[in-house]
Amino acid sequence: MSIIITAFERSPDGGKGLARDTRVRWALEEVGQSYEVRLVSFRAMKEAAHLALHPFGQIPTYEEGDLVLFETGGIVFHIAERYAGLLPGDANARAHAITWMFAALNTVEPPILEFANARLLEGDKPWYEERLTLVEDRVCRPLSRLSIRLDEAEWLDGTFSAGDLMMVSVLLRLKPSGTLNRFPNLAAYVARGEARAAYQRAFAAQLAVNTGQPPAG
Amino acid sequence: MSIIITAFERSPDGGKGLARDTRVRWALEEVGQSYEVRLVSFRAMKEAAHLALHPFGQIPTYEEGDLVLFETGGIVFHIAERYAGLLPGDANARAHAITWMFAALNTVEPPILEFANARLLEGDKPWYEERLTLVEDRVCRPLSRLSIRLDEAEWLDGTFSAGDLMMVSVLLRLKPSGTLNRFPNLAAYVARGEARAAYQRAFAAQLAVNTGQPPAG
Repeated sequence: MSIIITAFERSPDGGKGLARDTRVRWALEEVGQSYEVRLVSFRAMKEAAHLALHPFGQIPTYEEGDLVLFETGGIVFHIAERYAGLLPGDANARAHAITWMFAALNTVEPPILEFANARLLEGDKPWYEERLTLVEDRVCRPLSRLSIRLDEAEWLDGTFSAGDLMMVSVLLRLKPSGTLNRFPNLAAYVARGEARAAYQRAFAAQLAVNTGQPPAG
Repeated sequence: MSIIITAFERSPDGGKGLARDTRVRWALEEVGQSYEVRLVSFRAMKEAAHLALHPFGQIPTYEEGDLVLFETGGIVFHIAERYAGLLPGDANARAHAITWMFAALNTVEPPILEFANARLLEGDKPWYEERLTLVEDRVCRPLSRLSIRLDEAEWLDGTFSAGDLMMVSVLLRLKPSGTLNRFPNLAAYVARGEARAAYQRAFAAQLAVNTGQPPAG
């Protein structure tokens, strides 16, 4: 059954791979499923046709036969559950991997989003510099715990899973700030994620959209 | 198999039900599973025994036989998958319910957490009032979309599901600010969640911990 996702016609990050379609592309590459992409302009995202697919008027969406999904976590979970390669077979290991997905999205990412908002949306405010330090501290608190937990392991809980895919994707948002370099084992963990062939294909595909060049290879 | 969760020995909200153990208690009440609670002090949360259960040093945790889970979303998902009552049987409807769980935690809650941080942690800062308006706008953007999507429906997608449990729990955080009242259908939706017998039992149980009084009943 063919899979269609949506992505920005032109990503706000210009192709750094931080738009959320990259997470879905990566998941699809990990499980070896081909997919089509429908590009959506900022204007079209807020129009009725797209809002029928995505109630919050964002990307990505996911269409597969009569199933329509809209939230990155929900889409990646569906892919991980439907196709082999992103969730372990053992029931407890599977529950751990799913828990790490939620931890990435609800414990680690919220302060990272707050930090990104401070950097992107409040750069012209008189409070910018003083507040940025406060917010970076909020980011670093869970990261220091995560760094201790990961220790020297390759992945969060045994083999690579949807939990790692999501955690690496969330941590990637910190690369422009340099904050990740405070935690060398987390920086190495993110680099391991980026080095995966599936991530490379996903990254190249979104870059091609944003540069107008087809992926090399 | 007995289920043990952890909760604050003394919740920072004094029993308003906003600590995340309430979400897990509610899920367990919906599926009719009894559970035990181990209370944890702020000091104990950062000690090795608790960190072995919860890498971020928070509550709740969930123990069931040899399974240990730590993140609210992961725990509620596990309960919903293991016991009947929180996820529909139809595959597409199930995927929608799971997507709403992720949407609650990763699209709706992050700006609400940022708003809560602004109110709780930055009340003494010179930028407090000006910035609070900015942040409240960030909260209201997804809420206005959610309000349109919910419209006059009782729940997000047919019957009550783990997606509603999580969305109502996230929106409850806005009650102290009054922001929810800008969206009467969302306020009514939250009130429907709070009126469920399972929520009432969960709320009473956490209140009893925080007041030292056993639940009436």
